[in-house]
Amino acid sequence: MRIAIDAMGGDHAPDVVVAGALEAVREWKDITVILIGDAARIEPLIRQAGDQPSNLEVIHASEVIEADDEPVKAVRRKKDASMVVAGRMIQEKKADAMISAGNTGALMTTGLLIVGRIEGIDRPALTLTIPSMDGKGMVALDMGANMDASAEQLVQYAIMGSIYRKKVHGVVKPRVGLLNVGTEPMKGNELTKAAYPLLEQAPIHFIGNVESRDLLYGPCDVLVCDGFAGNIMLKSLEGAAATIFAALKIEFTRNLATKAAAAVLRPGITKFKRQLDYSEYGAAPLLGINGLVLKSHGSSNALAIKNAIRQARLSIENELLASIVKEINHLSK
Amino acid sequence: MRIAIDAMGGDHAPDVVVAGALEAVREWKDITVILIGDAARIEPLIRQAGDQPSNLEVIHASEVIEADDEPVKAVRRKKDASMVVAGRMIQEKKADAMISAGNTGALMTTGLLIVGRIEGIDRPALTLTIPSMDGKGMVALDMGANMDASAEQLVQYAIMGSIYRKKVHGVVKPRVGLLNVGTEPMKGNELTKAAYPLLEQAPIHFIGNVESRDLLYGPCDVLVCDGFAGNIMLKSLEGAAATIFAALKIEFTRNLATKAAAAVLRPGITKFKRQLDYSEYGAAPLLGINGLVLKSHGSSNALAIKNAIRQARLSIENELLASIVKEINHLSK
Repeated sequence: MRIAIDAMGGDHAPDVVVAGALEAVREWKDITVILIGDAARIEPLIRQAGDQPSNLEVIHASEVIEADDEPVKAVRRKKDASMVVAGRMIQEKKADAMISAGNTGALMTTGLLIVGRIEGIDRPALTLTIPSMDGKGMVALDMGANMDASAEQLVQYAIMGSIYRKKVHGVVKPRVGLLNVGTEPMKGNELTKAAYPLLEQAPIHFIGNVESRDLLYGPCDVLVCDGFAGNIMLKSLEGAAATIFAALKIEFTRNLATKAAAAVLRPGITKFKRQLDYSEYGAAPLLGINGLVLKSHGSSNALAIKNAIRQARLSIENELLASIVKEINHLSK
Repeated sequence: MRIAIDAMGGDHAPDVVVAGALEAVREWKDITVILIGDAARIEPLIRQAGDQPSNLEVIHASEVIEADDEPVKAVRRKKDASMVVAGRMIQEKKADAMISAGNTGALMTTGLLIVGRIEGIDRPALTLTIPSMDGKGMVALDMGANMDASAEQLVQYAIMGSIYRKKVHGVVKPRVGLLNVGTEPMKGNELTKAAYPLLEQAPIHFIGNVESRDLLYGPCDVLVCDGFAGNIMLKSLEGAAATIFAALKIEFTRNLATKAAAAVLRPGITKFKRQLDYSEYGAAPLLGINGLVLKSHGSSNALAIKNAIRQARLSIENELLASIVKEINHLSK
């Protein structure tokens, strides 16, 4: 299993990317990690770490796509950018999966222009695992790869999300929910009303509409929505959690008495705060791309990079891509 | 100022509605409140309260629209329902405003079919004041009256929301934000991309796109969105807050030590929890209806009903409706 990593992507690149890759190749001997980027910066980091594992390779790439680069322009012009080189390795079957913590739009573009779509899939979907209070999380797509979607595209998302939940998370019969404003079948906008009967017919375990009020309790295993609504939902959840935890912190540090009280409560609160922390939930695959392309959070630390590699490894091992291609082919016939 | 109230609407009707109305008429002598509903139930409640204020009237209505009634059918068939009778009073100018804590869909239908729309407005919008950490809140519309909206309708929402924020909340130059997935002008779906340039041209103080991540910090005074996205956003915020406060409660009551610690922290936490409590933020007007129609929360207590009356009184006093009609007329020319 060969996993290519954009070593220059993310807020703390290449340091944390190299550190995460080193941890991964030490733990899993059945993978080879290929670090792509500025060799003059990557190689000293590997040397500093001591041993040079045989299942870690470096490929030099002279350019970097920055966070504020315009995606399509950047991918077209910077042909030797670390992200683009990684994409080419997928396209040429020189790697089985790629990971980047860089510019999301550019990664999406790399997926579309360099790697290409799966035949029968209109649009790839950014697929995130949303935390839930029961610790199981929920696979949600599309989280913003395409702002608008058709009912047919929502069905494609549902099928891809179900296969992902089965293959990578080991859920035997994933319950698929449609993000909506109410649970009754006829609720929602034109899009969800058109998608509902199609989802009922699709080869998935559709359980109906799901309200965003209940999401943190994990009402389904796979949550389907268009990228605009998904992104609004995701950022509302994140924003509310961040705001409340920030306010709690102010209360906890108000004076000596509150500080002492906070010390008693901190272990429990830290535990459920971590349960709701998106960065603990690994990388987001771009499902629908004809290759395994995973987006790691821009603020990823070494552990997050290692977890992304774990996810890529599981996806390769369990033939995620072939399963999606097969199901979509089957549907198109 | 005559304010009609659907005394039978809401989870705790008619008791809390009567109690709230009594408090209101005692405090504001310049209003007359008309309680509409089952006189056999309403009148004893007033008598029990002691004095019978001269600015409180009761109009008997023999029917009630229930929470699970199909809105359009219910409004058409139950011609003597308390909500419908209140709507007719608005339409016939026998009252200046109406309030109901009942079935939201039925109230919307009452607004559309009995009272009617303002000329030039395509669709009325459910207008909620969302709490924010600074205590100022944010007027957000549409929160779910219409699931789909056109770019032109978003502009109408923006104009109505601005006038509401000025007239009822006293904000001189309300900053209008467009709910979106990013702050850059070209972000979003087809709808927000089409609405952005129209909002720039509109007679409002448009400040651009606003991300849902930042909403609880109150980045604008008026937030505009389609009813589907708005409802998803609202329920995500509410759901995240409810889930986190529920988890906190579990931590606080885990054992004697955590209970003691919680006692120290509770005053501060209760304060900001209350700041984020939607029920403290009053009723939601249906802007765009040719009359003042306010939706109070289904679980309203007497204080919430009194606050809704306060809002209705302010809206009448400051000529909210006439201001909206004038601005929309002006635009249509």
